[in-house]
Amino acid sequence: MRILDILNNGEIGSRVVVKGWVRTKRGNKTVAFIALNDGSTINNIQIVADAEQFDEPLKRISTGACLCVEGELVESLGSGQRVEVQARKIDIYGTSPEDYPLQKKGHTLEFLREIAYLRPRTNTFGAVFRIRHAMAFAIHKYFNDKGFYYWHTPLITASDAEGAGAMFQVTTLDMENPPKADGKIDYSQDFFGRSSNLTVSGQLEGELGALALGQIYTFGPTFRAENSNTPRHLAEFWMIEPEMAFYELEDDMALAEDFLKYLIQYALDNCSDDLEFLEKMYDAELRERLRFVVENKFQVLEYTAAIEILQASGQKFEYPCTWGADLQSEHERYLVEKHFNNPVILTDYPKEIKAFYMKQNADGKTVRAMDVLFPAIGEIIGGSQREENYEKLAKRISEMGINTSDMWWYMETRKFGSAPHSGFGLGFERLLLFVTGMSNIRDVIPFPRYPQNAEF
Amino acid sequence: MRILDILNNGEIGSRVVVKGWVRTKRGNKTVAFIALNDGSTINNIQIVADAEQFDEPLKRISTGACLCVEGELVESLGSGQRVEVQARKIDIYGTSPEDYPLQKKGHTLEFLREIAYLRPRTNTFGAVFRIRHAMAFAIHKYFNDKGFYYWHTPLITASDAEGAGAMFQVTTLDMENPPKADGKIDYSQDFFGRSSNLTVSGQLEGELGALALGQIYTFGPTFRAENSNTPRHLAEFWMIEPEMAFYELEDDMALAEDFLKYLIQYALDNCSDDLEFLEKMYDAELRERLRFVVENKFQVLEYTAAIEILQASGQKFEYPCTWGADLQSEHERYLVEKHFNNPVILTDYPKEIKAFYMKQNADGKTVRAMDVLFPAIGEIIGGSQREENYEKLAKRISEMGINTSDMWWYMETRKFGSAPHSGFGLGFERLLLFVTGMSNIRDVIPFPRYPQNAEF
Repeated sequence: MRILDILNNGEIGSRVVVKGWVRTKRGNKTVAFIALNDGSTINNIQIVADAEQFDEPLKRISTGACLCVEGELVESLGSGQRVEVQARKIDIYGTSPEDYPLQKKGHTLEFLREIAYLRPRTNTFGAVFRIRHAMAFAIHKYFNDKGFYYWHTPLITASDAEGAGAMFQVTTLDMENPPKADGKIDYSQDFFGRSSNLTVSGQLEGELGALALGQIYTFGPTFRAENSNTPRHLAEFWMIEPEMAFYELEDDMALAEDFLKYLIQYALDNCSDDLEFLEKMYDAELRERLRFVVENKFQVLEYTAAIEILQASGQKFEYPCTWGADLQSEHERYLVEKHFNNPVILTDYPKEIKAFYMKQNADGKTVRAMDVLFPAIGEIIGGSQREENYEKLAKRISEMGINTSDMWWYMETRKFGSAPHSGFGLGFERLLLFVTGMSNIRDVIPFPRYPQNAEF
Repeated sequence: MRILDILNNGEIGSRVVVKGWVRTKRGNKTVAFIALNDGSTINNIQIVADAEQFDEPLKRISTGACLCVEGELVESLGSGQRVEVQARKIDIYGTSPEDYPLQKKGHTLEFLREIAYLRPRTNTFGAVFRIRHAMAFAIHKYFNDKGFYYWHTPLITASDAEGAGAMFQVTTLDMENPPKADGKIDYSQDFFGRSSNLTVSGQLEGELGALALGQIYTFGPTFRAENSNTPRHLAEFWMIEPEMAFYELEDDMALAEDFLKYLIQYALDNCSDDLEFLEKMYDAELRERLRFVVENKFQVLEYTAAIEILQASGQKFEYPCTWGADLQSEHERYLVEKHFNNPVILTDYPKEIKAFYMKQNADGKTVRAMDVLFPAIGEIIGGSQREENYEKLAKRISEMGINTSDMWWYMETRKFGSAPHSGFGLGFERLLLFVTGMSNIRDVIPFPRYPQNAEF
């Protein structure tokens, strides 16, 4: 039985067996108190052990040791919990020598990143990773309940969805001595018979799914080989990309809003102990911010109108704000936190700053894009209606100088039974930053990958 | 409204809008019948259109076209369905020229693999990918209901979990002109400051999760760069790897059996239309085989006993069967299908044919491994209790000549609060082969990766 279940539902007077890791041990000559945690909850269960009876094992028990304790579940007066365990038998599964890196309290997040193999044993990372699980499950449940199909797009690919992202190359060639032809590397001898790389987005293949199964979503790893040493970038991260046949931009926005509110409400409903802890330790306004999103109707306006508001704001921004330029986080947050005091969805961005596949508006200048902007973090979702017209799409691709020789199959979907369709992308770790209140993206994924680091 | 919902719950006499792709069109001078499918179900909805009124659109409608039809939902007499749509308005979203590759019926699976970007529009692949979704969701639901946490292990890694698998290298170096130091490639200049590759298993990092959060599972892509052009191998596939603190081998086996039965029962309960179709088209014994697994208690026996049975069987096998050798699929199937007529779990394999991390038995010869064997496919799950003793593990690693310099963090878990723990791995596509009855693994994943193929 997990400690979570015993704390919540264990019957007073019953015989229990608890297993977990020692968080603290204290006591005196008569009695010892051990706080035991098994990762199922942020809360520890208190073990009360007779100091004389358990003299021998108690000597070998220190922070980090792993124990199996049999005992009686009794009402707790002092531990802050409903119940505690009066020990009858203590087995030590594994001791924890003095050099245990989590010995003392109050480590910095930077230090804990260096021991990512142990940090899930801390309160902070236990909480973050339980919330990570809850959000992942809520995503699957949301889409399953709505009749979407989970669609696995390939990780290794020969095409580049955005036409721009920096990519990791994948190879089985001997790099010290690669085969050559005409003085260049002969990729026909590589595993896939051509040069290949790690995907930057599953969207293009997602569209193939939507144009067959109707409504699909992806949820998988994506990769960017950008040399960005920032608290907001990872080289390997997880993305959710729903794609829906027959959705126009308005349907896409409505889904994005409903989806985000569902996820955040799910966290509020299912992760209250962990959220409470994170709020106390890191971010006093955490749940207030979550409720702010759930309780407000998202404000929808066009990019052009947003630029006018920003220009008329009198606010001093670090980056200038002119029509045609991408919005910076400071602009997005001004709109959300100051001007509207509401989550915001911006639509109809200039085509020059958006991807080739977005549906072109009649004005010749903008596309049917939409970005969802949140407090504290700015853009959390980016999406669009897709250009379903073959000629318009081909023209845009040619204007942008994109090589389509690897994307013939994508174009074919506009040739055979094309349909209006839309989709969006949500960076999973971006969502988690918002929901957990953590400020560094390396702290919301178990084993972060970034420049100079592929440890563990 | 999806066609699935209209077919099941649409009210007769109501006004409906249906959107989907034309599967067939037939009729005469008076009336046209269009079978429309939107991917939500294997079943089409029949559109009945007055041939005179819709003369113009009907001329442009052919197999593969995408339509939006408004009409009245009426009782169906001839279509094999409860209801059909009497068309009042027909919009063509996208026509489908004569060169539509899915024009005619009865394509081979080989041909459909070449047009993987269109094959989900066929009955077969619609069914397979809906089942794929259902199984993925069932996996998440099963573990979530049991209090397991979903644990994302890294895809890019510098360690090799099995110590043997052929791996894909990941790099951002310019392969035509890589930086060199002392005549060798200077990986300190690569993205991660060292040579890195794609993971072959998330298990080692999964153990880190279990030894902190108690019970975790992974569900993500894994990679093998083996040059295997077979119907059973993929270069990129999805694995599920639960890992549980405090589980001994018996608990591990009980979980594996319960898990597989849950998944298969879920398919029987939730995918009956698709299973019926696949049964009719590909595998007459499909659901009988699924029920066989659900209804029988798995037979547990030791590897050594299995070898004795096989040697005494009088059966002629292609491969010899001697103690110390790995079992071949033919041996596994003989035990399951002929000898026991039961799914089988074999335990306690010779240590030489299993991985370094498995818990060593006192006999010095075998390890606490377990493989679950199924009819038709042989091994479906492989797992073990893990060696939690630091000295035994270190000795085994040294015996096997494995380089542990990249795995110091794994060893540390045996040093600080070590605990008995176990886990297993299930290849998602292997499961899908069993559940769908398909015979080639390239047909149960949307975009298969194998030697010479990274298309789409």
